[in-house]
Amino acid sequence: MGLLSRAKSFLAKCSLAAITHRPMKEINKEFENQIAAAIDGKTKPVGALGRIERLAAHIARIQGSLAPRAETCVLIIFAGDHGMASAGVSAYPPAVTRQMVLNFLSGGAAANVFARSVGADVRVVDAGVAGEPIDHPGLISRRIAAGTANALEIAAMTPAQLTRAIDTGAAIGRDVSEDVACFGEMGIGNTSSAALVAAKVLGRPVGNLVGRGTGLDDEGLARKRSLLERAAARTGAKLDAETALSEYGGFEIAMMTGAMIGAAEAGRIVIVDGFIAGAAALCARAMSPACEANLIFAHRSAEAGHGIILDALGATPLLDLDMRLGEGTGALLAFPLVKAAAAMLRDMASFESANVSGPT
Amino acid sequence: MGLLSRAKSFLAKCSLAAITHRPMKEINKEFENQIAAAIDGKTKPVGALGRIERLAAHIARIQGSLAPRAETCVLIIFAGDHGMASAGVSAYPPAVTRQMVLNFLSGGAAANVFARSVGADVRVVDAGVAGEPIDHPGLISRRIAAGTANALEIAAMTPAQLTRAIDTGAAIGRDVSEDVACFGEMGIGNTSSAALVAAKVLGRPVGNLVGRGTGLDDEGLARKRSLLERAAARTGAKLDAETALSEYGGFEIAMMTGAMIGAAEAGRIVIVDGFIAGAAALCARAMSPACEANLIFAHRSAEAGHGIILDALGATPLLDLDMRLGEGTGALLAFPLVKAAAAMLRDMASFESANVSGPT
Repeated sequence: MGLLSRAKSFLAKCSLAAITHRPMKEINKEFENQIAAAIDGKTKPVGALGRIERLAAHIARIQGSLAPRAETCVLIIFAGDHGMASAGVSAYPPAVTRQMVLNFLSGGAAANVFARSVGADVRVVDAGVAGEPIDHPGLISRRIAAGTANALEIAAMTPAQLTRAIDTGAAIGRDVSEDVACFGEMGIGNTSSAALVAAKVLGRPVGNLVGRGTGLDDEGLARKRSLLERAAARTGAKLDAETALSEYGGFEIAMMTGAMIGAAEAGRIVIVDGFIAGAAALCARAMSPACEANLIFAHRSAEAGHGIILDALGATPLLDLDMRLGEGTGALLAFPLVKAAAAMLRDMASFESANVSGPT
Repeated sequence: MGLLSRAKSFLAKCSLAAITHRPMKEINKEFENQIAAAIDGKTKPVGALGRIERLAAHIARIQGSLAPRAETCVLIIFAGDHGMASAGVSAYPPAVTRQMVLNFLSGGAAANVFARSVGADVRVVDAGVAGEPIDHPGLISRRIAAGTANALEIAAMTPAQLTRAIDTGAAIGRDVSEDVACFGEMGIGNTSSAALVAAKVLGRPVGNLVGRGTGLDDEGLARKRSLLERAAARTGAKLDAETALSEYGGFEIAMMTGAMIGAAEAGRIVIVDGFIAGAAALCARAMSPACEANLIFAHRSAEAGHGIILDALGATPLLDLDMRLGEGTGALLAFPLVKAAAAMLRDMASFESANVSGPT
């Protein structure tokens, strides 16, 4: 896919290129000391901004700068349909994917409202919505197919389709010119897809990752679990990320995986949304370990199973607001924290510059 | 103080005035049903935005509107000095209060940086900074005195000073023209003051509310605890809010108490910052129970004792970021969530308006 070789040179390229004449370990240590000194020198008690300080240090590392910027932000929403959606894994009919794409395009969805509220742009990508192509000037059409195959029975996509989805996503990610990239998704059935992908990448029983999605009742949840366990039994207990994505993925999840890798490669801050984005992040990390350094985890989703993904990623998200909508809504709400953290390190006065006394 | 009579007519006035020809209970129930129907009709699974939905409902109640607005925001920082600060209750010298006021005025403090980042204005009020009055065109001078008396030994302020501080704060709060009011504070020694005030209002031992403030070490913390226990022993175990404030308060805490009451009276959304603002909120609620309806709690502070205040207020804050800076910084970081929640209810499309199908 051309990604691995690029990924290998990524860490060196993205941040500390200016001082690569010295050993990386020493440089990293020196830069870490500079970050700590800059943050501790700000006019506030040491550590008083808690996680915002750690977030600022993270952003400084991503950008290789003590004056980092997280001022501009884009949300890219990938939409795709799932062959298994008709089998009863969701509370909503598959037609809703298409209807929601139109809702995104007319600016009425939660993602649009939140994006306007926090000052982010929105782009909508058709990664593979069922039915005829949607004809709309605002839509970015990157359709791999009119929905995946029914992953309960057979592989969701061919290896060639997967490659196209990942590479298309990577190109979209590399093209992000904003400081911060949020990736969202829409696809009826995609908590099922994400649960299967994550379960296979982690080698965990899919039952541990099954949740109510858009709002299944107890009976619906039991049916979803039983269907997904049958689907999981088609393949080995643990799969590499590429196989997991082609067996169970959605086009929107595969494209988001590529987008995370591409945006990280381009040096962007990537805010990872909730459960489905978490499954994509698991795959992105497996395929390009370097991209992990650029990921900031937005929120702890109310979807059961997100905790398992976060634990596997060693992630402690910024927010915990009992949300489970997807679309990138959690990522958008975390953006102001990221923006403020960067601004703190970049713009806040030091004890010295402001003539403020330190502790006695 | 003129507040109580105003407070009594507050609930009726602020929100549902247009339909007061029917019993309030019935109206409230009808309005609650309208809020729930509006939120559940938005293009998202029921409940999928979790706390943002509950926050939107809260804001709708404050404004008595199904199209609430939380677009504009101001941070008002009250600064004051504490007579007990010289006795060794803080890691920082008392002169820092004045130095930080100048830092706020030149835009270099965390509060300024966060305010710019989230799009809030900042106003700085001298409620009683020690030394000569600060001569700066940007400063709102409402000095009650050049710092409080040493509350370890005697009452921090006279009843007349308290009345002036509360009434001055209430006037400042009522004058807020922005949708959202955040109140911050600066005052070396004011975690001690807030701990004593909160302990007395709640009738709890002050030891339960003592924390490291700006960063005391173990020895400093033990000294602070011992000093505050001696100060607490001067008075009865439980005091009314007015007495607690005059015995132990700071001018900035008393003024903030009044500002919360005044801003709530004026129908504003009030975002309550951390530990010290929490102590002010306890007093504000005691003095004007109606104001509680307008309070949104920003974050769980890392300052020990904040949990006790939050529990007493029945509050679950929006953020938990291990912060303990004050200045209103936590309130500012919560503002984008408040803004987004209001926008969700006001601007998001409904299933009907967007032609999106509901659950099957």
